[in-house]
Amino acid sequence: MNSGFLPATSLFLGGARSGKSRFAEERVHATGLKPYYLATGRAMDDEMSERIEQHRQRRGKDWETVEEPLALADAILQTALPGRVVLVDCLTLWVTNLMLAGADVGRECESLLDALPEVDAPIVFVSNEVGLGIVPDNRMARDFRDAAGLVNQAVARHCDEVWFIASGLPLQLKPQR
Amino acid sequence: MNSGFLPATSLFLGGARSGKSRFAEERVHATGLKPYYLATGRAMDDEMSERIEQHRQRRGKDWETVEEPLALADAILQTALPGRVVLVDCLTLWVTNLMLAGADVGRECESLLDALPEVDAPIVFVSNEVGLGIVPDNRMARDFRDAAGLVNQAVARHCDEVWFIASGLPLQLKPQR
Amino acid sequence: MNSGFLPATSLFLGGARSGKSRFAEERVHATGLKPYYLATGRAMDDEMSERIEQHRQRRGKDWETVEEPLALADAILQTALPGRVVLVDCLTLWVTNLMLAGADVGRECESLLDALPEVDAPIVFVSNEVGLGIVPDNRMARDFRDAAGLVNQAVARHCDEVWFIASGLPLQLKPQR
Repeated sequence: MNSGFLPATSLFLGGARSGKSRFAEERVHATGLKPYYLATGRAMDDEMSERIEQHRQRRGKDWETVEEPLALADAILQTALPGRVVLVDCLTLWVTNLMLAGADVGRECESLLDALPEVDAPIVFVSNEVGLGIVPDNRMARDFRDAAGLVNQAVARHCDEVWFIASGLPLQLKPQR
Repeated sequence: MNSGFLPATSLFLGGARSGKSRFAEERVHATGLKPYYLATGRAMDDEMSERIEQHRQRRGKDWETVEEPLALADAILQTALPGRVVLVDCLTLWVTNLMLAGADVGRECESLLDALPEVDAPIVFVSNEVGLGIVPDNRMARDFRDAAGLVNQAVARHCDEVWFIASGLPLQLKPQR
Repeated sequence: MNSGFLPATSLFLGGARSGKSRFAEERVHATGLKPYYLATGRAMDDEMSERIEQHRQRRGKDWETVEEPLALADAILQTALPGRVVLVDCLTLWVTNLMLAGADVGRECESLLDALPEVDAPIVFVSNEVGLGIVPDNRMARDFRDAAGLVNQAVARHCDEVWFIASGLPLQLKPQR
């Protein structure tokens, strides 16, 4: 790991409770830049509220939090100013929100990727890998799994660095070492 | 990656929408040999038909398609002639078909592995990793997960190269670098 | 792989039917120490009994088997005597048992980690990665997935070696090569 350095764009993939957010936060913290947390999740029930609060307490007081469930490209353009670093957590919840809102996930993903070269601060994405279990019974879950996988592929293709986190430990997928 | 070269047998593993088929297709294409697509999936509903058609369009017109849901060893023996390269997509659907047909998956897998040394063309397998989620509720799904995992292990043991694809990016599992 | 050598603590992660137990057994066998199999699973139905019996036959007669579904720290302290090596299979079933018994998984995990420096025999853990599929529908499955993930992270942080096994093939997560 290149402590302190973050490229223009990086992606931290992993399963539930894999330690991917913590790992990404540590990389962000090591830059010394002002950290912004761009949350795509909304506290729609107690379980979610609790999880959001746990993450907030772990990050500490130097982080600013911005919440944006849908218009991610705009939120990045507004937040990613020089001297800052932006952690987007996470792409999977963003895809969920887009699908529930009836949005075109492919087009939103293109807008996101188009926005990235415009900004002058490192952007760090966190995303879930959700396609490694049994095929889900219902069509909506399959469609979500497809959309999440395609967004992960598109963002991974764009990013300078991609890591897969398992049990808190990182595997570097890109650039190949 | 060794561009242009493919060993006698290789396996590309990954989750749903991980980019494993695309990655395998690119390796096949780079050989310059005549590419054959050996499809184990059958268009049993609109969702499946759509997915098959998308894959077909992506591959392009130089590919020949052979469909065989069950007798995979025979289909490989007939298709894998000198000057060709055969992409089998995918082993997981083949296992599904065998189980639905009441076949002995272990025995069919042995027949498949026995056929491989007989042919004189590179064989490329694509398969899903399906065992990294929560234990499924129903016995049939657990049995399928077991069968798919055992077939993946057996084919991986046989293959000269094995890759794990996540978000379109490859990790080499075999040979160890 | 360092044939014959095992560090004080190691962890072999993988999905269902990934070959993780077999891989761990081979590492244990290569040490030449007296192998103890510490089973956390209980034969509660025919399916489970069958699976346990298959594992037992594969390991062979030189292995001693100890069954302990809950008090894992105590079982390790009693079993891990000099001249022995202990394979704990698996942490995921242990977490399941703890949750069904209403125990505090976090505290039990701390007790486990506190016990490890006390023993004078290599301890090998096997655990399932269960967080790489779709978010489960029901709260209990989500809670289990969270608990299993957090235990995997905590044990991985402690262990000298961590491996991820896919289709029978190992990826070294720790130490980083």
